[in-house]
Amino acid sequence: MKNRRLLDTVAGLTRLMETPAPDEETILKSSCQLMASLVAHDDWLPDALAKPHPDYYTQYLLYGDPLERFSLVSFVWGPGQTTPIHDHTVWGVIAMLRGAELDQHYRRTSEGIVQAGGESRLHQGEVACVSPRIGDIHRVSNAYDDRVSISIHLYGGNIGRIRRSVYNPATGEPKEFVSGYSNDMTPNLWAPAA
Amino acid sequence: MKNRRLLDTVAGLTRLMETPAPDEETILKSSCQLMASLVAHDDWLPDALAKPHPDYYTQYLLYGDPLERFSLVSFVWGPGQTTPIHDHTVWGVIAMLRGAELDQHYRRTSEGIVQAGGESRLHQGEVACVSPRIGDIHRVSNAYDDRVSISIHLYGGNIGRIRRSVYNPATGEPKEFVSGYSNDMTPNLWAPAA
Ligand SMILES: [Fe+3]
Ligand SMILES: [Fe+3]
Ligand SMILES: [Mg+2]
Repeated sequence: MKNRRLLDTVAGLTRLMETPAPDEETILKSSCQLMASLVAHDDWLPDALAKPHPDYYTQYLLYGDPLERFSLVSFVWGPGQTTPIHDHTVWGVIAMLRGAELDQHYRRTSEGIVQAGGESRLHQGEVACVSPRIGDIHRVSNAYDDRVSISIHLYGGNIGRIRRSVYNPATGEPKEFVSGYSNDMTPNLWAPAA
Repeated sequence: MKNRRLLDTVAGLTRLMETPAPDEETILKSSCQLMASLVAHDDWLPDALAKPHPDYYTQYLLYGDPLERFSLVSFVWGPGQTTPIHDHTVWGVIAMLRGAELDQHYRRTSEGIVQAGGESRLHQGEVACVSPRIGDIHRVSNAYDDRVSISIHLYGGNIGRIRRSVYNPATGEPKEFVSGYSNDMTPNLWAPAA
């Protein structure tokens, strides 16, 4: 690794998870601070895990807790790329490392799926949260049509393996999906700083 | 990963470390069982972390506990390769995945460094222990002059970053060394099985 930032974040998160029975609010508060520190400097993400795919957004696992208490992922947005409307089923923290992203929340109603609030824009260095408690359905997009954006996501589980849903924007109908990960190799957090 | 073996081992070790104040004997006993299971099948180590170096033995980090309670390393021996006489300063478990290795223990005396017991041979599937308590100084070699051997090592710390010693075989004089790791990328334990 280029420096200790990712290691320090992962160590802080592991310590947090080992606290006896922390509640979601405590976890989110401490996690947000750790994630804000992580994206305060854009000098640590290995190039291999910052590479966009030409056709769709990419998610690279940076670190997976062996006991599946959390996962840390880099979301790499090519120009103009966007997610479907989807949920997570676990709490999450989104921290903007490079560029900017647009975040539109939704809620399910008897008539289908409707926008909840306006679109918010997450700027470099900013942090946002999702959870089943505070609103779990959204669509995220690269705010730029002409450059890559990268956000670092933390989830309260193995997000690439969780069965969750994407929603048909017209009918609101959910469809199960499992997102997976795009990478076979993760950073050696203990490799020497360059 | 090709299957769940490495993930299951790392998860078991993490659970073990989170047991309140386990003593070294308990840790070694449980670790030995986990490591024996890991090397019972040679079908999981990614090729990139099984590659020998032509000139010296190689150590690839497979997983590093963020709180530095343990590290799991693949030691890849080219034909005829050997370590210097060295110590570890932490407990360790050696589990033979492929081929065989020779293990000669030493102890320090007022006259220098002398062999402690005979040379032992570790066969595929076998497990051995080191620790400051049970004998921490040894030299390890590939048992074969004509093929690669690979052992999987578990240590009670960040072995690549610990300041420890190599010993001059003639004088017994210690010299500080830090072994490091040969790889910048470690396996994604959550990648799908091939
Ligand atoms: Fe999301
Ligand atoms: Fe050794
Ligand atoms: Mg020989």
